Amino acid sequence: MINTIQRGCFITLEGIEGAGKSTQIEPLAHVLRKRGIKVLTTREPGGSPIAERLRTLLLDPLNSGMSETAELLLMFAARAEHLEKTIRPALVAGTWVICDRFTDATYAYQGGGRGIDPAHIAILEDLVQGELRPDLTLLFDLPPALGLERARERTGHADRFEQEAVRFFEATRAVYLDRAQACPKRYRVLDASQPLPDISAQVQIIAANFIDAPDKQSQL
Amino acid sequence: MINTIQRGCFITLEGIEGAGKSTQIEPLAHVLRKRGIKVLTTREPGGSPIAERLRTLLLDPLNSGMSETAELLLMFAARAEHLEKTIRPALVAGTWVICDRFTDATYAYQGGGRGIDPAHIAILEDLVQGELRPDLTLLFDLPPALGLERARERTGHADRFEQEAVRFFEATRAVYLDRAQACPKRYRVLDASQPLPDISAQVQIIAANFIDAPDKQSQL
Repeated sequence: MINTIQRGCFITLEGIEGAGKSTQIEPLAHVLRKRGIKVLTTREPGGSPIAERLRTLLLDPLNSGMSETAELLLMFAARAEHLEKTIRPALVAGTWVICDRFTDATYAYQGGGRGIDPAHIAILEDLVQGELRPDLTLLFDLPPALGLERARERTGHADRFEQEAVRFFEATRAVYLDRAQACPKRYRVLDASQPLPDISAQVQIIAANFIDAPDKQSQL
Repeated sequence: MINTIQRGCFITLEGIEGAGKSTQIEPLAHVLRKRGIKVLTTREPGGSPIAERLRTLLLDPLNSGMSETAELLLMFAARAEHLEKTIRPALVAGTWVICDRFTDATYAYQGGGRGIDPAHIAILEDLVQGELRPDLTLLFDLPPALGLERARERTGHADRFEQEAVRFFEATRAVYLDRAQACPKRYRVLDASQPLPDISAQVQIIAANFIDAPDKQSQL
């Protein structure tokens, strides 16, 4: 019997701290579900039991002195688990997957922020993902100072590393924007400094257009 | 000022379960120390605080369902840490490093035993190690059935996975022997089925000859 199920689409949300991308996951999933699409929402690093254990290890301050190469490999180890246990099975079953951060974040944070050679990231991307790439990526773009101001409002205190953080996020943001420019078919860049209802409205339009003409970027 | 310290030599011990390689570490270190050489003994996976945490995670039965790619990446993440925090600083300071298992074990176990594409292992080897390779590798070779018999004598009970284990270790052993044949300058193959005193005597001769004419295989 031929498998007639169309694979699901793979949508990722990207952006620096304070860009509000996580807030948009549920509204986006809602638009899809209203159109009868099965949706799975997930996040990186994490998204499967072992990958979540790796997330804990990556975020544990005890491991903050970890070598950059080790951190990069751990990130992709978690991604390999996430793909095998969660993302690929869902896509194969016809479910659409919305993931809060994916490999673009590795290019932006580890590559742009920490200065890791993007060629090394590309090697691991090919090794772990094969041909799979997201079909659609929503980039919530924001000046870092504004993102950090929002984070400060949430936590109620100034971050003593704020100046350093601004420089780090400038480099991260630059990589995100470069990647979006290099691959306009896959990316939609949203101005995340707008009021929340405006952003949500734009997300809904993007989702509706994509559902009408989904553009799959890769083989599973 | 020019740094006149000669880098230390990097010696690895390899072999399947029950081959007795770990038993030979201290006698080998003793021969080197008697000749005035500073020696650091270490092991993989592990050998630095974060790498030991990754070892715990790799060996935890809770994680036994881990994807093969994730396991491979974790192994190299631990290796990246071990190299940066322990092995390279020792070698640079002129200390010789004796390591119980290294990347040959990844080729033998993950490649031979589990069937992971050796080209993937080679990609990660280059990414994590750069040009660094062991200068000398002692391979303790043994028919798997004998190795498992020794392990059974130690633990006092038969392993219900023994048949499967024999097949796994046959594949592992074959890769070790292939690699030794392909690179005779670096490898010394010992017949680990001999009585312990005979093996120790051979290890001492190999060590003495290597000290007299160390043959460094790579740049740090």
